[in-house]
Amino acid sequence: MKKILLFLLDGYADWEAGFVSAKLNKPELGFEVQTISLETQTVTSQGNFVTNTANTLESFDDFDKLSAFVLIGGTGWGNQHLIKGYHPNVYDESSSASITALIDECLIRQHIIVAGICDGATFLADNGYLNKIDHTGNSLVHLQNKGLDYAGAAHFKELQAVSFGKIITANGTAPLEFTRELLLCLGMLDGRNQVDEWYQTYKQGYFIMTCHETYQIGKPSQKNTKNGLPTFLCFFYSAQFISFCRPCCSR
Amino acid sequence: MKKILLFLLDGYADWEAGFVSAKLNKPELGFEVQTISLETQTVTSQGNFVTNTANTLESFDDFDKLSAFVLIGGTGWGNQHLIKGYHPNVYDESSSASITALIDECLIRQHIIVAGICDGATFLADNGYLNKIDHTGNSLVHLQNKGLDYAGAAHFKELQAVSFGKIITANGTAPLEFTRELLLCLGMLDGRNQVDEWYQTYKQGYFIMTCHETYQIGKPSQKNTKNGLPTFLCFFYSAQFISFCRPCCSR
Repeated sequence: MKKILLFLLDGYADWEAGFVSAKLNKPELGFEVQTISLETQTVTSQGNFVTNTANTLESFDDFDKLSAFVLIGGTGWGNQHLIKGYHPNVYDESSSASITALIDECLIRQHIIVAGICDGATFLADNGYLNKIDHTGNSLVHLQNKGLDYAGAAHFKELQAVSFGKIITANGTAPLEFTRELLLCLGMLDGRNQVDEWYQTYKQGYFIMTCHETYQIGKPSQKNTKNGLPTFLCFFYSAQFISFCRPCCSR
Repeated sequence: MKKILLFLLDGYADWEAGFVSAKLNKPELGFEVQTISLETQTVTSQGNFVTNTANTLESFDDFDKLSAFVLIGGTGWGNQHLIKGYHPNVYDESSSASITALIDECLIRQHIIVAGICDGATFLADNGYLNKIDHTGNSLVHLQNKGLDYAGAAHFKELQAVSFGKIITANGTAPLEFTRELLLCLGMLDGRNQVDEWYQTYKQGYFIMTCHETYQIGKPSQKNTKNGLPTFLCFFYSAQFISFCRPCCSR
């Protein structure tokens, strides 16, 4: 079975790993998700989940079975000095090189997808992988401040997730969009419609909430505002609908 | 430091635990998230994350320091026969009773929050906790089919998450709304505005995507459609904007 490696450090962002791990590991998709870390075998997430990782960078060499190498974000990238701009004086060049060695092998010889979310994307920026391709990240300023070898500003896109060739990037609020790009790049599910259906189910939720529905529980007296002007404004200004409605809602 | 317990089974839903664990464990909020499981000390998530849990139901008795008991959903509730409607003939009454004993202690004597997402909520329904209070879950039909002692249909709300008194429920597509209700019930952050700001940041994302922005990368020729009728329809039909736009988008 083909593998997808999720790279984790101490302080990894639980919410960035949640959708991508569970979705890509679904048996019907034919891939197995495995965790991988530096030399350690146990990492602790931001949410205090203690995770036994299955592989270390040193020991992994099963590239024939690898489909994607995914860098999960979190506080470890800065705290463990793996990105130059955080603490340049104590930059851990050796550990960073062990990560870029695996990335290089994926991209150069194996045609394997490399994906980074949040500071996973910053790491890619810091090592020059994004200088010539469309990409995103937590923000352009963040990539410029932390990625000392980053020179890709012209290709930065203010989008939740971006894929270009075999490289996928996303910001830390985009766990769903990051997973969607991976599904599409891996050719999983039955094409774009099925991926979009999955995405919309989780993005919107089973029960789409408008601000009035959200705030209405136990307050039947407010139901009449549903037909009033504020609700019309909600529907008109789709993307900003919550912020437009907030002044007219109370709980 | 006050504790928040996240109850995990094999097959727990990574995405349901991601936001709630990382957010509630933020040092500035003053709570420590700890994992807890049945008698086992290791559980494996749907995404193949092997987690060493910190507590077992048998050993936990530190109620003075407990602020919330949170039941994460996943395949274990059915596979391990903890909910009557899945496989009534092999229902594990003993293990279920060890969970309800902790819930009872929280609700009856300790005034501690109990929260369930996805089949965590179904478990609450199956054991009669939701019969008299506003609540939600994966769907009314699901609660009725799986919760053999559920008789709370009159109080079921088609919402992403619902809190009533000390009990919080949510469906499996609502990890953010579930976390929001917990933050509010725990009195964390600086009231509703700050909670809403956090919620909107992750719900919408740093870079709010409209369908046309999403699909436009590398396709400048399509930009003109932004001012056309299809885009107007997108904005008008807010909640369904992606599905309305899909026919007029291509990548």
